[in-house]
Amino acid sequence: MQFDIEKAIPVLERTPQVIEALLNGLPDEWIYSNEGGDTWTPIDIVAHLIFGEKTDWIPRTQIILGEGSRQFVPFDMEGHIKERKGKTMSQLLDEFTILRKENLALLKGIDFSGEILDKTGIHPQLGRVTLRQLLAAWVVHDLTHIHQLSRVMAKQYEEAVGPWKQFMGVLGGKR
Amino acid sequence: MQFDIEKAIPVLERTPQVIEALLNGLPDEWIYSNEGGDTWTPIDIVAHLIFGEKTDWIPRTQIILGEGSRQFVPFDMEGHIKERKGKTMSQLLDEFTILRKENLALLKGIDFSGEILDKTGIHPQLGRVTLRQLLAAWVVHDLTHIHQLSRVMAKQYEEAVGPWKQFMGVLGGKR
Repeated sequence: MQFDIEKAIPVLERTPQVIEALLNGLPDEWIYSNEGGDTWTPIDIVAHLIFGEKTDWIPRTQIILGEGSRQFVPFDMEGHIKERKGKTMSQLLDEFTILRKENLALLKGIDFSGEILDKTGIHPQLGRVTLRQLLAAWVVHDLTHIHQLSRVMAKQYEEAVGPWKQFMGVLGGKR
Repeated sequence: MQFDIEKAIPVLERTPQVIEALLNGLPDEWIYSNEGGDTWTPIDIVAHLIFGEKTDWIPRTQIILGEGSRQFVPFDMEGHIKERKGKTMSQLLDEFTILRKENLALLKGIDFSGEILDKTGIHPQLGRVTLRQLLAAWVVHDLTHIHQLSRVMAKQYEEAVGPWKQFMGVLGGKR
């Protein structure tokens, strides 16, 4: 599938609703459990998405389209810890919804005609990347975290499902 | 996490909203694309969930709790093909929402006190399984298909993300 801004925006628009439908009002055990060790809980993941709205996708779009340095600011993989602090899941979900709406308003304000999607920036690890790749990565990043949320939640029932584990793709099973 | 019917139902209740938020109204390319070969598209997955509502989770609960044979009817992994036929995504999402609501009403009508969750049925491949395992598997089955939907969608942008693929867990990357 070729990247097409008109087909990417509908996915980006839906993510806050998807994540809110999945997590809002769930019993705490589902939202404060992780996959063991220092893996992320659902609340960490939502805080990470908020931090991405603030520091990643639109700020990097602006670097690509701006007049200054093309160099992206490195993304802080611990940035969610501060975002999460003292907030409930419901507050984080509201915050993510608002930030995403604001960021999509900025995105929709960009004139995507001509060669603009071929413009580039410099990613600290990946090197030169295009605006097209950045925006496709924003979509796939949303999907990565929906994927992760479903896996983190399923993990909590790894024992409870007994022999069904072998049929459950999300638990490494074959279906 | 121990299986607790009061914590399982909220997940089962949310699944139709999650899937509707993710898929309803999306451009066709997202919902009719698969991961190659005879893998499933999002529309196949929703049809499979409908077929499960009709023939899997509640019917098997009724077999466990009924007076007749404990033997489950084998599940038809091709059953979604008939369910999907001639229907739009929007129709399928509505159908899934209604069936899930009806099935949860039946589930909530069961008295889960005593040892009822220890009652068993005979799965054609897995052998003797408890009602507790069946209901936990229903939850994880929902999560498996949310997991799969996010992966099938992400797959469509595997090329478009360029070097970001290596950071995208849903595409086999390391984050």
